[in-house]
Amino acid sequence: MRKLALIAAMACTGVAQAQEIPSDAKALIKSLYTEALGDQQGYQWLKYMCEEIGPRPSGSEAANKAARWAQQALLDAGADTAWLQPVDVPKWHRGEEWSKAYAGGAPVVLPTTALGGSVPTPAEGVRAAVVEVGSFEELEALGEAGLKGKIVFYNTYMDHSKISTFNAYGGAVKYRWAGAMEAGKYGAVATVMRSVTLLRDDLPHTGAMSYGESEIQVPSAAISWQAADRLAQMLEAGEQVELELYLDCGVQGRATNYNVVADFKGSEKPQEIMLVGGHIDSWDLGQGAQDDGAGCVHAMQVPALMKKVGYQNKRTIRVVLWANEEFGLDGAKEYARWARENSVHHWVAMESDGGGDVPRGFGVSADDERLEELRSYKNLLVPYGLHVMAKGGGGADLSPLRGYDNFFIGYRPESQRYFDFHHSARDNIDAIHPRSLEMGAASMSALYYILDQLQ
Amino acid sequence: MRKLALIAAMACTGVAQAQEIPSDAKALIKSLYTEALGDQQGYQWLKYMCEEIGPRPSGSEAANKAARWAQQALLDAGADTAWLQPVDVPKWHRGEEWSKAYAGGAPVVLPTTALGGSVPTPAEGVRAAVVEVGSFEELEALGEAGLKGKIVFYNTYMDHSKISTFNAYGGAVKYRWAGAMEAGKYGAVATVMRSVTLLRDDLPHTGAMSYGESEIQVPSAAISWQAADRLAQMLEAGEQVELELYLDCGVQGRATNYNVVADFKGSEKPQEIMLVGGHIDSWDLGQGAQDDGAGCVHAMQVPALMKKVGYQNKRTIRVVLWANEEFGLDGAKEYARWARENSVHHWVAMESDGGGDVPRGFGVSADDERLEELRSYKNLLVPYGLHVMAKGGGGADLSPLRGYDNFFIGYRPESQRYFDFHHSARDNIDAIHPRSLEMGAASMSALYYILDQLQ
Repeated sequence: MRKLALIAAMACTGVAQAQEIPSDAKALIKSLYTEALGDQQGYQWLKYMCEEIGPRPSGSEAANKAARWAQQALLDAGADTAWLQPVDVPKWHRGEEWSKAYAGGAPVVLPTTALGGSVPTPAEGVRAAVVEVGSFEELEALGEAGLKGKIVFYNTYMDHSKISTFNAYGGAVKYRWAGAMEAGKYGAVATVMRSVTLLRDDLPHTGAMSYGESEIQVPSAAISWQAADRLAQMLEAGEQVELELYLDCGVQGRATNYNVVADFKGSEKPQEIMLVGGHIDSWDLGQGAQDDGAGCVHAMQVPALMKKVGYQNKRTIRVVLWANEEFGLDGAKEYARWARENSVHHWVAMESDGGGDVPRGFGVSADDERLEELRSYKNLLVPYGLHVMAKGGGGADLSPLRGYDNFFIGYRPESQRYFDFHHSARDNIDAIHPRSLEMGAASMSALYYILDQLQ
Repeated sequence: MRKLALIAAMACTGVAQAQEIPSDAKALIKSLYTEALGDQQGYQWLKYMCEEIGPRPSGSEAANKAARWAQQALLDAGADTAWLQPVDVPKWHRGEEWSKAYAGGAPVVLPTTALGGSVPTPAEGVRAAVVEVGSFEELEALGEAGLKGKIVFYNTYMDHSKISTFNAYGGAVKYRWAGAMEAGKYGAVATVMRSVTLLRDDLPHTGAMSYGESEIQVPSAAISWQAADRLAQMLEAGEQVELELYLDCGVQGRATNYNVVADFKGSEKPQEIMLVGGHIDSWDLGQGAQDDGAGCVHAMQVPALMKKVGYQNKRTIRVVLWANEEFGLDGAKEYARWARENSVHHWVAMESDGGGDVPRGFGVSADDERLEELRSYKNLLVPYGLHVMAKGGGGADLSPLRGYDNFFIGYRPESQRYFDFHHSARDNIDAIHPRSLEMGAASMSALYYILDQLQ
């Protein structure tokens, strides 16, 4: 049926596939995968980033060490130029952090982490009665009468029934982002939330939060899934539950981090940039292997694999590793500002920020004609598990380019495991499966090879 | 393009999809996934099998404990009948096992495991010079002159360039199966091989081997990937390398294990059996989580999920958990013998023996018309990542039914990680990702729901 479908589609849309893609495309694409799965260069790079450099939070020296290392690795891989672009970022600090629940018996220690951007608690911590809510609607219904002086516990969930875990994340992350801002309005003294994850484990997951324009700023933390279960059970038992929260954290001024920008010059249309990138910063609890070390080495592998199999790109392939995605998109904004100022034309831009699991496909933001054209090459991609060529894609770090350029791609790996690791102490190199990571790199390289053939 | 293709295909093949599948099919299928991903009953079952029962090798009491537990779990899940079918199996024994390489310096300990079916070494072990070969052709070229009195080291690989790891396995496993038989012909005194895996780690992987009809039976073991690298490096350095191998292992008589057979009776066509199964035995190094505890709980979940969402199956759904797949297919052969004797008609039979990773689709052995019919329902399955509906499928435990019945399905999860765990001490419950496992169960249940609607 697949063959039938292809013929039908080609007859209908008039896509002239055979004229653009060389007859050895299949063999060249195969060689990209063979190279990636053999050498596992991407995995070796990522292992270095994780084990030798480690967590790379906004404003950290580790983020700069990673940038310098990646710059050299890209030069070693054959980049014609590679430079560091300074980016002004907030400097995030995290010290000791814990919470304990009291309900008559011995205090129950809950694995706890400050959300990114939270103010600290007072030096003596904060202790108050806990009020559980399952939504902003419940929060509003309780109002100041029910919340003043209390600690709000957002017992909110990612929707387990959603098949795309990114969709489930989208529905839950608002409580992380705005939970403290909303609870502060009603006089709450702090907030804790069930970690935004689908793994029912005992590690807390951090991530960015915001007070918006509010002057009321209350400390805000996440507790592990199992801790949230324990706290909910204590409350359900009808006991008066108090929580004691201690957070030493906060933004401590500004610092300079760097975007890495490396060009592999095109032989025929060097002015047409095919950008591919990931973000080099990470949260501070883990090594940032999945988020987004994987995306960095995916991007680095795209031109590296082409070089290794002897393919000369016609357009310029530019690898960009953005600074501070997690805590304000500063690197992406600075790169976009610079690109506009210098009239850079991104013929296409692709981002990998969904982790290193096995390939599923791509999301594409482009006009319908371009999307259909790409879909007509699915027969080259499906053998590698790339069935998805969805409308709509890109990623956070490409967003500042939107409206300026108009052809964006987001790499889509399998999403089931991603939020197990995301923003937690579990996001380490052993969260990475080497073959799956390399399949992703080869998939992105294969798509860029195909695109490089097109008008 | 997908919609276009479907219309085109339907126009061409005349498949009348709308007439057979109820209009609420989409909602019912969604509810199967929601149920599986919420309760995670399959994962809970598997956790019990792994942690409370553990490895279930051929002839073990643990295999029987697992059968009795599964029988009760299936009754608890609503089975109308559940019985244990005795199966005569070889009793596998594994005791101490190790090897050391000598090349002048201190001996190098190599993580080692006997292959399943190997004879033991003499009590004092065996020590001899090592000869490395990369293929049977190289073995043959060396002949008796080069091999007599030596230990053959099969430095053979799964082909990393193959995207389906099962295909890569197929190309490498012959050295495990027949390596000792072939080397014995030339007077070799033992064989070791690079473990059949794609993960470059330090654990050995076992699996069945055979001496065929040969009376020459030499001990045969696998060493870890990294040990094989070390051994190859020692040999490459041009040194005379000796290996000392000790294996306490072997078949120690016969024992009785059990197939589990549980029926969930159909309301309209109870005589038409829709069989779904996995094998309850495992190798002895790990807990048999991926191979094939996952397949067992997949099969158990198929009717359990239907019950939970309130679907009454028209045909009888039969769960079969086969004894001793790994070491001779005894359970599958015995079930098939009994089914023939009792004129059981399997309208369809589906096997899960590819692990518990995320769903990719199914392989189908059926006539072309049935396959096309199934493909016409892809729109119901693709939202769950089930893009593959390949020609050809089933599995080892269905093979004794072939020629007797003719409609077989093999569930195909993502294969990239499978051989990391396969037959090694790594195949434990923590090798299982709960959501991915449950997605598999729901996928198999969804396909059986669709099939139950068809004529």
